[in-house]
Amino acid sequence: MKKVKVFITLKESVLDPQGQAVMQSLHNMDYKNVRDVRIGKYIELEMEDSAADIKEQVEALCDKLLANTVIENYRYEIGEEVRS
Amino acid sequence: MKKVKVFITLKESVLDPQGQAVMQSLHNMDYKNVRDVRIGKYIELEMEDSAADIKEQVEALCDKLLANTVIENYRYEIGEEVRS
Repeated sequence: MKKVKVFITLKESVLDPQGQAVMQSLHNMDYKNVRDVRIGKYIELEMEDSAADIKEQVEALCDKLLANTVIENYRYEIGEEVRS
Repeated sequence: MKKVKVFITLKESVLDPQGQAVMQSLHNMDYKNVRDVRIGKYIELEMEDSAADIKEQVEALCDKLLANTVIENYRYEIGEEVRS
């Protein structure tokens, strides 16, 4: 069993209205030194080791389901063995 | 200017229906070796260095706005200097 962490972020060129709203709220709360906020997703997967290459599999499921690769980038970390 | 990465996750004891739905979809797509999915948020902040301690400030804004500490945990990484 392996723990996989996936980070999904909007591409630089894509507007992030949710991030802008959060930044506005932070400014209203007097955190004026926050210059930019970008909001993405953080997904933790627990995967059984299978015959297939785990890297390949993680990339496939990011491409097919987890990320929208038209507007989002993703990166992942394959973590330590987890006892199940 | 510093880049701060904030990771917000649901507490272990809190049900994650969104994660369950994603897991079900992955199973339907024949990725049967995915055993658990938890979905959280990943927030990137760009902050100007101020007189105040940046760590303290990040914790304050997580507690007050970014995370719901009743059901969520957060951790953060304060990254490298960014040229602006």
